[in-house]
Amino acid sequence: MNVLAVETTATAASCCVLADGRVVGRSAVNAGLTHSRTLLPMCEQLLANCGYTMAQIDLLAVAVGPGSFTGVRIGVAAVKGLALPDNKPCVGVSTLAAMARMWEGVSASALLCPVMDARCGQVYTALFRLENGVLTRLTPDEAITIDQLRERIADEPQVVLMGDGTAVCQKAFADLPQVVAAPPALRMQDAVGVALEAAAHAADGETVDAAALQPVYLRVPQAERELKAKQNQQ
Amino acid sequence: MNVLAVETTATAASCCVLADGRVVGRSAVNAGLTHSRTLLPMCEQLLANCGYTMAQIDLLAVAVGPGSFTGVRIGVAAVKGLALPDNKPCVGVSTLAAMARMWEGVSASALLCPVMDARCGQVYTALFRLENGVLTRLTPDEAITIDQLRERIADEPQVVLMGDGTAVCQKAFADLPQVVAAPPALRMQDAVGVALEAAAHAADGETVDAAALQPVYLRVPQAERELKAKQNQQ
Repeated sequence: MNVLAVETTATAASCCVLADGRVVGRSAVNAGLTHSRTLLPMCEQLLANCGYTMAQIDLLAVAVGPGSFTGVRIGVAAVKGLALPDNKPCVGVSTLAAMARMWEGVSASALLCPVMDARCGQVYTALFRLENGVLTRLTPDEAITIDQLRERIADEPQVVLMGDGTAVCQKAFADLPQVVAAPPALRMQDAVGVALEAAAHAADGETVDAAALQPVYLRVPQAERELKAKQNQQ
Repeated sequence: MNVLAVETTATAASCCVLADGRVVGRSAVNAGLTHSRTLLPMCEQLLANCGYTMAQIDLLAVAVGPGSFTGVRIGVAAVKGLALPDNKPCVGVSTLAAMARMWEGVSASALLCPVMDARCGQVYTALFRLENGVLTRLTPDEAITIDQLRERIADEPQVVLMGDGTAVCQKAFADLPQVVAAPPALRMQDAVGVALEAAAHAADGETVDAAALQPVYLRVPQAERELKAKQNQQ
């Protein structure tokens, strides 16, 4: 099975072709450019560089959140567009689960803590136990404060941070020596994790059609919150 | 410091832009296509996708071997060509060290064993100790038989294989349960490792100019071996 996966939930954007669990090609940029301009050309180049056409892609995968609302929408919209013409099956995966999935098979034991900057003093996070390469999810995707996250990880012997919230959490947890940042090759959210996570879902029959693919914001968008606050004042 | 790194020592080809230790962009294909056709366009696309020009690149990095002789030559020649116009400093790194470098900072303890298919019943390999994320080289880059490699790893409690020789070694070591393959995201040789390894060398002042960049074959090329055998027969 050939999977084309995209990841656009933060400032980094990436895409990946996975064929029967093997990474055939991957492309990622983390340069603060606009995903709406860079994503589709990057996918097109990747397929061409791999010698693939869209006709050979069996499954579309996308990180549906949590993350930047605009970023999530761009990824979901792009994948809907790619899937629709031939009504290809899609899988939307958690941004946080996709990051943790990159560690599956890494022969280490640690608490994996993907974190994304959720603004407003919060992070999007979920905790995963890595036990000799076997991955288990411990908590659901949530938007919590850094202090709440501290309570959950303070007593762990080994915690690995990853995702675009790594720097801010490293600073906040500087007094906890057991908390380390993932190395550069596994630091940022990446479509390789999205592809691996989606392949696992697809193996369980959990695919949807393009129309059913939905962003997962976890929080009410800022514009809606502001509108509601305004209405409440009136 | 901005590094542009390339990796073409086997069937996979990849390039990466690293800025002060941060992966700004990366691109990789492992589809059996010809590097001489794919490598430079892939570098050009990567720079464009990152919003970089060659003028912003301070250091060129390349995996100089061991590996496929043709692959190594293509990578070295391409980097020489990119470095020459502005006489940019270059770093040539060991393909095997670059693979191991990707694990630096992974909070695990294991014997890292990058392996590449060297044909003729041999593998190119070197052993690295990973101790809670700290990396130490144990053996030099060598071409040895799989049986010789078995002797070196058989008594280790945890061995991680990576590189394009992984599959053949996994089969050969199927009776050793402590030997596992690296997960997909860290399996193949990749320019991210080349960039990280080169940045470490550059920090130690170990750069050369383009003219001094040399492939490292470890063995005499097959054509030369065959010529010598012919001459000996005469």
